[in-house]
Amino acid sequence: MTEPFASRMIKVNQARHWARLMEMAEIGAIPGPTDADRGVNRACLTRLDREARRLLIGWARDIGLSVSVDSMANLFLRLEGQDTEAEPVLTGSHMDTQPRGGRFDGIWGVLAGLEAVQAIREGSIWPRRPIEIVAWTNEEGGRFAPGCMGSMAWSGSEPANRWDAVIDSDGVSFRAALEQHLAEEADLPRRPLGPVGKAKPVAYIEAHIEQGPILEAEQLDIGIVTGIQGSRWFNVEIRGKTDHAGTTPLGLRHDAVQDMIRAINALNTLTHDPEDILRFTVGRIEVLPGSSNTVADTARFTIDLRHPDAAILLSKGDAIPQTVEAALQDCSASVSETFNAAPRQFQHDVLDAIARAAQLNEARYRHLMSGAFHDAQFLASVCPTGMIFAPSRAGISHHPAEYSSPEQLARGTQVLASTLLDLASR
Amino acid sequence: MTEPFASRMIKVNQARHWARLMEMAEIGAIPGPTDADRGVNRACLTRLDREARRLLIGWARDIGLSVSVDSMANLFLRLEGQDTEAEPVLTGSHMDTQPRGGRFDGIWGVLAGLEAVQAIREGSIWPRRPIEIVAWTNEEGGRFAPGCMGSMAWSGSEPANRWDAVIDSDGVSFRAALEQHLAEEADLPRRPLGPVGKAKPVAYIEAHIEQGPILEAEQLDIGIVTGIQGSRWFNVEIRGKTDHAGTTPLGLRHDAVQDMIRAINALNTLTHDPEDILRFTVGRIEVLPGSSNTVADTARFTIDLRHPDAAILLSKGDAIPQTVEAALQDCSASVSETFNAAPRQFQHDVLDAIARAAQLNEARYRHLMSGAFHDAQFLASVCPTGMIFAPSRAGISHHPAEYSSPEQLARGTQVLASTLLDLASR
Repeated sequence: MTEPFASRMIKVNQARHWARLMEMAEIGAIPGPTDADRGVNRACLTRLDREARRLLIGWARDIGLSVSVDSMANLFLRLEGQDTEAEPVLTGSHMDTQPRGGRFDGIWGVLAGLEAVQAIREGSIWPRRPIEIVAWTNEEGGRFAPGCMGSMAWSGSEPANRWDAVIDSDGVSFRAALEQHLAEEADLPRRPLGPVGKAKPVAYIEAHIEQGPILEAEQLDIGIVTGIQGSRWFNVEIRGKTDHAGTTPLGLRHDAVQDMIRAINALNTLTHDPEDILRFTVGRIEVLPGSSNTVADTARFTIDLRHPDAAILLSKGDAIPQTVEAALQDCSASVSETFNAAPRQFQHDVLDAIARAAQLNEARYRHLMSGAFHDAQFLASVCPTGMIFAPSRAGISHHPAEYSSPEQLARGTQVLASTLLDLASR
Repeated sequence: MTEPFASRMIKVNQARHWARLMEMAEIGAIPGPTDADRGVNRACLTRLDREARRLLIGWARDIGLSVSVDSMANLFLRLEGQDTEAEPVLTGSHMDTQPRGGRFDGIWGVLAGLEAVQAIREGSIWPRRPIEIVAWTNEEGGRFAPGCMGSMAWSGSEPANRWDAVIDSDGVSFRAALEQHLAEEADLPRRPLGPVGKAKPVAYIEAHIEQGPILEAEQLDIGIVTGIQGSRWFNVEIRGKTDHAGTTPLGLRHDAVQDMIRAINALNTLTHDPEDILRFTVGRIEVLPGSSNTVADTARFTIDLRHPDAAILLSKGDAIPQTVEAALQDCSASVSETFNAAPRQFQHDVLDAIARAAQLNEARYRHLMSGAFHDAQFLASVCPTGMIFAPSRAGISHHPAEYSSPEQLARGTQVLASTLLDLASR
């Protein structure tokens, strides 16, 4: 049931919401040429991440929310319901960024949840169900690959110890970083990991910037996300032999760089899609020993493969190891899959609730698929799930030029607030 | 003039020579599976480099050599001649290694000089000319590219401040590293940079391992190097635009990795040589921002190009920028040349002196070209120059498995000692 009367009484505060976003963006700020080009580099489980979380916790406590953390460092802020035993409505996103990321990807969803809850309280409305705001750990995967570790472990998609040995570029393991982080947050109440008992949400709503150009191009206010395309990540390691670049004829080499080039050429052919729907990306390359006059003995690269059709994602992804193998001339290779998120369709009742909230607030909207993966992809296996997109300027994301205006974000947050109130009132 | 009588009286000490090589190899040691597979990682101008130099200086002072350092941190150890005003004979090599290098590349030439001088002293011979042993700074170029900075600056091939702004992988500039190093060696006497006045050598002889398979295959003791093939180094930077790997169609990307692949494919075609004499190597690749789910906006790679024929090296090297440019589809690129060492032929009188020394010591020898560049390449523009190669097991170099036996190295050192004595007696 929607509650049009109550929803009309709540009004998010655009200035406050934007000021919080900008204050948060100072933590890990990357200077930019213009005010709308300042980026953020805030990797998960770092000092900066903890600083950002403390800032959020301060704001949450100021409006009476209770704080708790689980063993994956997922952070929860709870507005108690009239019925303290009722299952909560969950909203949120993540606070970590790409290494040269923007000010809105992830953090907007968390602060939109906070602003929505504050607007509900300021409307003197006390919903029946608790509303919880969550900040999931390591959604981006920029420091520790893959992303979505917090939501995958919470939802049971993967065991929580799955990534213990994953190391960052400084050789620090995910387990070590997580334990240090939890030790520094030992003053925060701990909660069990996962949707256990009364912690199982009745619904999860994630607000996020679009990270694509559609809403801006069509001059719309929000996107109602119908589902998320599937993603598969792979690590490839090519192993050859070092040799002196001046003395070793090419015919006698086992050059890991040259076999990597052959492998990527073959993968480009494998993933060629005349309709340009299949997304194939090599975003990280490492070559060892990395000396200009030494033939490389090791080349590592990552593959990010995405498609909305599960069958295509399955067949193309499964063909990767043999494609790499067949392309090698002088070296050997190993291919390991590090992430596999199946395409996900969201349920109609949540999508309908968002659409009603948009109509109520006179927001222009459309339905669309998400090209990016999100924590919502894993939540959808636990409870009815939906996402609200705000427009992204020129579709730019994962870059300091990522931008959405104060008005666009406030409008999205307003729709989120109405949706949360609707769901929490049922 | 050779001095067969005197030369017969000098005998290098194989056990002492090997023991010093092994003690030196402990500084920066890389553990290996067998005793003959222990490598060394000793980058120039590091704490390890200074530790190695101090060990060498201690040995040199024990046998009465005087020590001095120039403004490029090139280190000189001098055995005074009967005629203190005579121009010296110079020998030596370098002490730095590749990141995963061996125990012999470079350091053998320095310690062979020391052993040769000690053998001459122990033979109670006092040559007319001074003999100086030099350890050139940064021959490898592994930490700061390019290599041979010390010998290039000393010989006047490049100005000494040419590489001030070159940075290592930690962002430390060559100038800063050099100044720190010189500050820590402030107790050592300083000498002017270059072959000024009486410092101009009458000849330069460099002992070095072959780093190729020929001497071992032909069961020879030494190689007399007739010249060094030319080398050109380039840095290529491809600049595109970051985008989200999930949301951006391939047709709209400016993917620096994909244009790098196109460029290397085109360069492979440009440098294809059916005779396999042209050496083309991409040994270092860097991709930014380096996140698996972000399209890269920057890809950098190095090119190492070598050929013994100056005309071929000129035409192929000069075609590199336009080849890269033509291969790009969505990005822009800049190509800069960082090193250019023309092919070099050594003079006959020095080659003949080495051949006579080999005959005198009953060493089996042949003449050959060097595929690797060496400091000798730049010394040859200053004075008559020659090189003595010792065999390399399986031709392996720039790798922990690099190996030459105690007998092979002692024999090469013996030929060096006789050659130095000959040249210093003239």
